[in-house]
Amino acid sequence: MTRRELIAAIQKKRSVLCVGLDTDLTRIPAHLQQEDDPIFAFNKAIVDATAPYTVAYKPNIAFYEAEGVAGWQSLDKIVKYIRQHYPDIFLIADAKRGDIGNTAERYARSFFHTLDFDSVTLSPYMGKDSITPFLGHEGKWAIVLGLTSNKGSADVQQLSSDDERVYQKVMRTVAGWGSENDLMFVVGATNESDLANIRQRFPRHFFLIPGVGAQGGDLNTVLSQTFISGEGGVLINSSRGIIYASNDQDFAEAAGREAKRMVGEMEGFF
Amino acid sequence: MTRRELIAAIQKKRSVLCVGLDTDLTRIPAHLQQEDDPIFAFNKAIVDATAPYTVAYKPNIAFYEAEGVAGWQSLDKIVKYIRQHYPDIFLIADAKRGDIGNTAERYARSFFHTLDFDSVTLSPYMGKDSITPFLGHEGKWAIVLGLTSNKGSADVQQLSSDDERVYQKVMRTVAGWGSENDLMFVVGATNESDLANIRQRFPRHFFLIPGVGAQGGDLNTVLSQTFISGEGGVLINSSRGIIYASNDQDFAEAAGREAKRMVGEMEGFF
Repeated sequence: MTRRELIAAIQKKRSVLCVGLDTDLTRIPAHLQQEDDPIFAFNKAIVDATAPYTVAYKPNIAFYEAEGVAGWQSLDKIVKYIRQHYPDIFLIADAKRGDIGNTAERYARSFFHTLDFDSVTLSPYMGKDSITPFLGHEGKWAIVLGLTSNKGSADVQQLSSDDERVYQKVMRTVAGWGSENDLMFVVGATNESDLANIRQRFPRHFFLIPGVGAQGGDLNTVLSQTFISGEGGVLINSSRGIIYASNDQDFAEAAGREAKRMVGEMEGFF
Repeated sequence: MTRRELIAAIQKKRSVLCVGLDTDLTRIPAHLQQEDDPIFAFNKAIVDATAPYTVAYKPNIAFYEAEGVAGWQSLDKIVKYIRQHYPDIFLIADAKRGDIGNTAERYARSFFHTLDFDSVTLSPYMGKDSITPFLGHEGKWAIVLGLTSNKGSADVQQLSSDDERVYQKVMRTVAGWGSENDLMFVVGATNESDLANIRQRFPRHFFLIPGVGAQGGDLNTVLSQTFISGEGGVLINSSRGIIYASNDQDFAEAAGREAKRMVGEMEGFF
């Protein structure tokens, strides 16, 4: 999906919501556990209920890998299901990959071709040759970790480097490898005091923003500091807050309600 | 595999060789392409030919993921095959994973339980909660990126931070989270001038050292700076130099010869 198409989807739905499909087999409602593929059945119901409010889905690859071959089958099925039924959805593989050039090329093939994702999250620790294989593919995106939403972001990202933080230097360097058309950054919602500054430094890049909801970030604060009028410029991710809004028969309905509520909060920014 | 067991395997085989199973479907010899599972058939032949000289195998997960569900099936099969036939082998999932705590727990389950690896390579960019879920499992290891062998290591790892490099600070911090019994570091062979210094700072940690051979590192130089007498303390990885030593009918024999040759070069250090 190109930048132009993504912005069109955002404007049409008046939403920058991304739903994180961190689907944990042990948290799937009891009545779905008898299905052939409970992970797929759960995801399908969540997607059908939330798609009217959602511009992106972000399966967290760890949750599928943890189930081995069966997990990869479920992942493949949900990607195909979304592609077939909701063609205007932006698909993110939340994989945090990062390896040397010849290996990075394989990961790019895995997520852009074997699985038909629009984008994949990447860790920049190994530098340029670990990122560039994901750039320059028409309609495909690298989403590189900038400043993450977890406590551990202090350990490496926030180290000082000359008169900056490591993450600031990293984001500046990484920005030079791609463009606003094939490169986004992960910027955690829990670093509220840094968001405005990061937006100022990167006025046109899309940010994928996790950490709203379960992790503590406030949606209004985040949008007021990062939203780009007429473009959106952000994808606000919520995972557990939506997909586990209820763990009963009404889980999908509850997820839909919660997605709708969040999109309602975004209305003032459009 | 515990530290004691790993050291015993090293002493018995007089080898610190790790063979990287970066198995690329397009580079598998023509006569294997008709097999049901060419990736497994190739790996099996390589393992059978090199096991007498090898203490560790390191499948590069990207090469399996790139083939989707079928790739994960091949990976599962080769792990089970090695476990069954070569019980004294140390198994490394070269995955470079790194994500927030609840996700890291899933990756730990994926590689330590769903697949029966002894260890997994990890990227430290997201900090403590991305690493600790892999620590403290009896006989299982986190292998954290320190200074990597690729050109891109300059972009983040070699940035200055106060009076150190980022990778130095990161390795020191990470070392505080685990012990020499559950934590190793990846240290690239191509950074020859830094190896002695890194060993001095971490006198008892195992280092997984890629970059010998195809990437240009010299085995003798590397061992003279990092080998620990009586323990080994290093796993020297070679991937392409061994598994693609020949791309003809004799590929397995050629791989065995090349592994044997490398182990011969290690003899002087035991």
